[in-house]
Amino acid sequence: MATVTDRSRVLIVGGGFGGLYTAKSLRRIPVDVTIIDRRNFHLFQPLLYQVATGGLSPGDIASPLRGVLKACKNIHVINDEVVDIDPTNQCVQLNHGKCNYDTLVLASGVENHYFGNEEWPAYAPSLKTVEDALEIRRRILQYFETEEKRYVTEVRTHTLRIVVVGGGATGVELSGAIAELTHETMKKDFRHINPANTEIVLIEASDRLIPSYPSSLSLKARQSLEKLGVTTRLNTKVLDIGKNTVVLGNGRETERLSAGAIFWTAGIKASFLGALLSTRTGAALDDLGRVIVEKDLTLAGHPEIMVIGDLANFSHQAGAPLPGVAPVAIQQGKYAAKLIRNRILGRKTLPFRYRNKGNLAVIGRNAAVADFGYLKISGYVAWILWVFVHIWSLIGFDNKLSVLMQWAWDYLTRKRGARLIVGDDKRGDPKGPLL
Amino acid sequence: MATVTDRSRVLIVGGGFGGLYTAKSLRRIPVDVTIIDRRNFHLFQPLLYQVATGGLSPGDIASPLRGVLKACKNIHVINDEVVDIDPTNQCVQLNHGKCNYDTLVLASGVENHYFGNEEWPAYAPSLKTVEDALEIRRRILQYFETEEKRYVTEVRTHTLRIVVVGGGATGVELSGAIAELTHETMKKDFRHINPANTEIVLIEASDRLIPSYPSSLSLKARQSLEKLGVTTRLNTKVLDIGKNTVVLGNGRETERLSAGAIFWTAGIKASFLGALLSTRTGAALDDLGRVIVEKDLTLAGHPEIMVIGDLANFSHQAGAPLPGVAPVAIQQGKYAAKLIRNRILGRKTLPFRYRNKGNLAVIGRNAAVADFGYLKISGYVAWILWVFVHIWSLIGFDNKLSVLMQWAWDYLTRKRGARLIVGDDKRGDPKGPLL
Repeated sequence: MATVTDRSRVLIVGGGFGGLYTAKSLRRIPVDVTIIDRRNFHLFQPLLYQVATGGLSPGDIASPLRGVLKACKNIHVINDEVVDIDPTNQCVQLNHGKCNYDTLVLASGVENHYFGNEEWPAYAPSLKTVEDALEIRRRILQYFETEEKRYVTEVRTHTLRIVVVGGGATGVELSGAIAELTHETMKKDFRHINPANTEIVLIEASDRLIPSYPSSLSLKARQSLEKLGVTTRLNTKVLDIGKNTVVLGNGRETERLSAGAIFWTAGIKASFLGALLSTRTGAALDDLGRVIVEKDLTLAGHPEIMVIGDLANFSHQAGAPLPGVAPVAIQQGKYAAKLIRNRILGRKTLPFRYRNKGNLAVIGRNAAVADFGYLKISGYVAWILWVFVHIWSLIGFDNKLSVLMQWAWDYLTRKRGARLIVGDDKRGDPKGPLL
Repeated sequence: MATVTDRSRVLIVGGGFGGLYTAKSLRRIPVDVTIIDRRNFHLFQPLLYQVATGGLSPGDIASPLRGVLKACKNIHVINDEVVDIDPTNQCVQLNHGKCNYDTLVLASGVENHYFGNEEWPAYAPSLKTVEDALEIRRRILQYFETEEKRYVTEVRTHTLRIVVVGGGATGVELSGAIAELTHETMKKDFRHINPANTEIVLIEASDRLIPSYPSSLSLKARQSLEKLGVTTRLNTKVLDIGKNTVVLGNGRETERLSAGAIFWTAGIKASFLGALLSTRTGAALDDLGRVIVEKDLTLAGHPEIMVIGDLANFSHQAGAPLPGVAPVAIQQGKYAAKLIRNRILGRKTLPFRYRNKGNLAVIGRNAAVADFGYLKISGYVAWILWVFVHIWSLIGFDNKLSVLMQWAWDYLTRKRGARLIVGDDKRGDPKGPLL
C-alpha cells in the first residue's frame, strides 16, 4: 500500500507504545513504513484511570497518530483494521484494501478478558479504551445522581458502594482515584446523600495487591489505599456478577455484595491477531493467547514477522513472560527498529534484553509505590516521581503542558474538572428531549 | 422536592446561561432553590465549535453543575428531566418523582430544527450538544481517513469538500474553524491526499452572513472567511440533503453538490417545554415555539411562572424578539432572581430591559467581528477582544486557565491536540476488535 519504491516495506500493526516506538525509531532508516491502527490516535493508557475519574479529558492523554508522525516522511498512517494475514504472500488484508510487507511487526496488544462470562461486561465494564473510561465515569457519576433522587422520595438505609475487581496496578490506581473522587471532590456536592460515605471495595483473588511487585510494596499499597478509604479484600474470588451485585467466595463461604457500580480489571487476553497469526503460521500461543516469540522477537520459522509489546510472550530472559507494561513495549519497539536496520546493513543483532528501569503505581494524591529492584520507595517521594515520569512520557508537548497544569490545579483545589456525563446510557435509561 | 421549610420554593428548569445565572443570583436570598437539568453540567455553548474542530476537549468548556453551585447551600441540583407541568397544583413531574414550586423559572432553551425533514439530521448533524460536537469532529476526521485509503486503490479526481449550511454566527465560526483545521493543521498529515485542498462551502439563504449584525460586519466576516479559504454562497437555499449530497437552489436553477461531510446550523426551535406550557396554561407561542412573555418575563395570567433565555420571546423592547445569545439569557436570569427577591420584600420591579453590550463572532485564528452599536470593529483587535471575553466568561477558573493555555499553545503551533475520533460510528461502519 506504500508508494512503490525499491525500499524494504515495514508494516506495523497497532499504534500503542510498541508500534509507535517502532515507527518513530525507523524514521531515519531507508525503509517504507506503514502503521495501521483502527483508532486515529495513540492512547497513553497508564493515565486512562484519570479520565475514568474525571481528572483528565481524553484529549489530554491521546495524540493523533498523524500528528505525532507528521514529520516522518517515510511513514504512512492507515486508519483501518486488519482482518487477515497471508504470510505466504507477505500481505495483510484490511477492511479497505490490503498491504504488502517485507517485515511485519505485530503490536496489537491485549483486550479485556472475562473468562467466558458473556454477561459480565455489561454489569462490570473494564478500563481499556477511551470509551471504557467515559463509561466508567458515567456510571460513577450517574450512581450518585440516582441515589440523590431516591433519597428524596424513599427512606433508604443501604450503604453506598462501588466495587473494583482485580488488585493489579489498574485496579489499585482506579480504586484509589475513585476514593478520592467520592470522599474528597464530591463530598459537598449533594444535599441528601454524602458520597464521602461510599464504601470502595477492591477485590483481589491472590493474597496481595499488585502481585507483580515485591511484597513489601504490596503491603504499602494496601496501607495507602486503606488510608484513602478503600476496603481491600484479598484471597477473595468473584464467583458471579449481576446487575449491581457481585458474588464473592473465599473457598469456604460465599457472600453477595450489592454495589452501585462495578468495574473489572481482573483479566486480559491477547488481541485476536495472535490467534489469527497462529492459524496462518502455526505460531505457538500461551494460555492468554499471546504469541511466543524467539530471542529476537521474531516468529519461529518466520524471521520476517515480529511480535512485540503486550501481544508477545517473551520468556527467554526471566523464565516467566515479561510483564505487559509500557516500558517493555517501548524497548521492544526500539529493538524491532534496530533489528530491521541491522538486517539492511547486513549486521547481526544481539537477542532482545529488557532493562527494567523500575515499576511505578500511584495510589491517590500523595502516595505511590516504586520498585527499582535495588531500591523500593513508597509514599510522597514515589508519588512525585510518578507524576514526573508520567508527564515526561506523554506523547506530545501540548499534552505534557496540559496535564501538568491540570494536575497542579487539581492538587491545589481537589477539583476534578472533567466530571461530565457524556454519551449514551448503555444501561438503557431513557434520555428524552433536551432540557 | 426541596427540604421542607416555610421558605418560598423556586424551581429552575435548565442549567444553561439563563438557569445558572438565576440560581447563582438567588444564593443569598432566603428561598429554597431547585435547579433541574437532564445533563449534569453547564455547557459553554459559544465554544462548542472548538470541540467540533479538535481545538478543545468537552471538559474544557463544561462545568459540573454541582461543582459550580456547591457553595450555595440553598440550592439543590437534580439531574432529571421534566415530563409534565401542572400549573394548578404548582408542580412539575419528573422522570423520577415530582417537584412543587412557588415560582417556576423555565430556561430550557432551544434545539435544532430541520423544518420537518426527518432524514436530514442523519446526513447533516447540528452543533448543539457535546455529542453533536464529537460527531462533527468524527465525521471531519473520518472523511479524510477514508479518502486517504481510497486514493491508494482507486484513481480519483473528485474534489474534497465539506459543506456547512447556515451563515449565522455558528455557521461562520464552524466553517472558519474547519478551514483552519483542514488548510493549516492537517495539511501535512496525509501522504496521498492533501486536506489543504478541501473546498469549504458555507451556504446562506439570505443575502448576507450573520444577518443579525450590521451589514458592514457581514461583509467583513465574508472577506475574512474567503481569506481563510471558505467559499460563501449567499442567496442560496438548501432544497434537499442526502448521503454526502446537498441540493441547492437560488430560485432559478438547482445544483447538486457532493460533499464528504455536511453540517447544519440553519434552524432552531424552542424546547418541547414551550409547547407543553402552552397546552397546560394557554400561553402564546411564536412561530419557533418560543413562549411570548410579559414585560417582567412572566406568563400572562401566571405571575408565578417566568420564561427566560432562548425559550422566551421578549419583544417589548425592540419590537422584534431579543436574539438567542448568552448575554440575553444571563441578564434575564439575573432579572428573574431580582424579581423573586423584590416580591419577597414586597417591592415593585421595573420591566426587564436588555442592555446590549455588543456582539462578537470569530473567524479563524486572527479575525473576528464585533458590534457595539456605536462602535463596529473587525480583524485582529476584535479577535483579541473575542479571546478575552470568552475566556473571562467561562464558568470555573480551571476552565479559564485550561482554555487560555490551550489557545496560547494552538496559536503558536497551529496544532489542534484534541483531534480524536471517539464514540460509535453512527453511519454504521464496522468497528471490530481492537488493533
